[in-house]
Amino acid sequence: MRRMSGVLVLIFYILSLLLPLPTTTASSRCSIKGLPLVRNISELPQDNYGRGGLSHITLAGSAMHGLKEVEVWLQTFSPGSRTPIHRHSCEEIFVVLKGSGTLYLATSSHEKYPGKPQEYFVFANSTFHIPVNDVHQVWNTNEHEDLQMLVIISRPPVKVFIYEDWFMPHTAAKLKFPYYWDEQCLLEPPKDEL
Amino acid sequence: MRRMSGVLVLIFYILSLLLPLPTTTASSRCSIKGLPLVRNISELPQDNYGRGGLSHITLAGSAMHGLKEVEVWLQTFSPGSRTPIHRHSCEEIFVVLKGSGTLYLATSSHEKYPGKPQEYFVFANSTFHIPVNDVHQVWNTNEHEDLQMLVIISRPPVKVFIYEDWFMPHTAAKLKFPYYWDEQCLLEPPKDEL
Repeated sequence: MRRMSGVLVLIFYILSLLLPLPTTTASSRCSIKGLPLVRNISELPQDNYGRGGLSHITLAGSAMHGLKEVEVWLQTFSPGSRTPIHRHSCEEIFVVLKGSGTLYLATSSHEKYPGKPQEYFVFANSTFHIPVNDVHQVWNTNEHEDLQMLVIISRPPVKVFIYEDWFMPHTAAKLKFPYYWDEQCLLEPPKDEL
Repeated sequence: MRRMSGVLVLIFYILSLLLPLPTTTASSRCSIKGLPLVRNISELPQDNYGRGGLSHITLAGSAMHGLKEVEVWLQTFSPGSRTPIHRHSCEEIFVVLKGSGTLYLATSSHEKYPGKPQEYFVFANSTFHIPVNDVHQVWNTNEHEDLQMLVIISRPPVKVFIYEDWFMPHTAAKLKFPYYWDEQCLLEPPKDEL
């Protein structure tokens, strides 16, 4: 019996290492109430939202901070990880803080499908923006280093159309809304405490 | 005569040290034509626009890149330098990259004048945003280090109302438009080359 409970404690300990406990609840993530005006980025909620190799932090934005016109993310992609092939009608600006990678961009929103994209090398201390509605993908193609970027979008929350490949027709791209990091707040609005 | 021309050469040499020659012309600063999609930040035009202690770079924005919804600046304030006391109706997000300083913020846009502002310590790896129309000032109050920040605004180009002090009525604040870094492009649009 004693050995049995010892094994259970061991299993629980291993599980606790594998499943990090959430440090914030849905309601604390989705309300500006109680948030300090100046926030330490290393204390903000960070998650991969089910996407391997991604770390996403919303620094300031719609769902959490009530902004209506602009939203800023800090994203880190481990080697080999990437965004989906996608488009959106908002403006988007990237500032690369660390690492390097490849931007794939198809400037063919007036054709039937994106087609073979152009490739651009992106690197630490570089900046670029995505023309509205152009289909694109950012990929950490550097095998040795994380790719860290600040991502700025207009008119949040973002409405993303996802493509399975570069030859999928624009009309077949699938709307993902709310997007991964907005799901918790937009699908489960915090309860009125009154 | 020989000594005279030697003196002239010396004067010209000293002047050339004091007045750095512009590396870009107005038209190359104000047109997206010929700009690469991915830009090395250290090669972008940087200026203090007549404000001591400031270094400003527009990473992506309205006048230069044709963006309509969002604009991003990289600004560095040397110790003691600061923004004017000002307000604007756009959203604004700061991401502090280096150094530290003080945000002064008066949340009294419904009163007659801003009044004594609240003070917030801002520091490397912190983020904050300014509520629309709140009067504010960012000041590098750290004597030893530059304060470097990414500044994101919505609806560029920015329209700024400047206050001489915190007790100036809101109605007396003076519109500065175009703002310092937009002057060259918005006042002197590039000539049509056709």
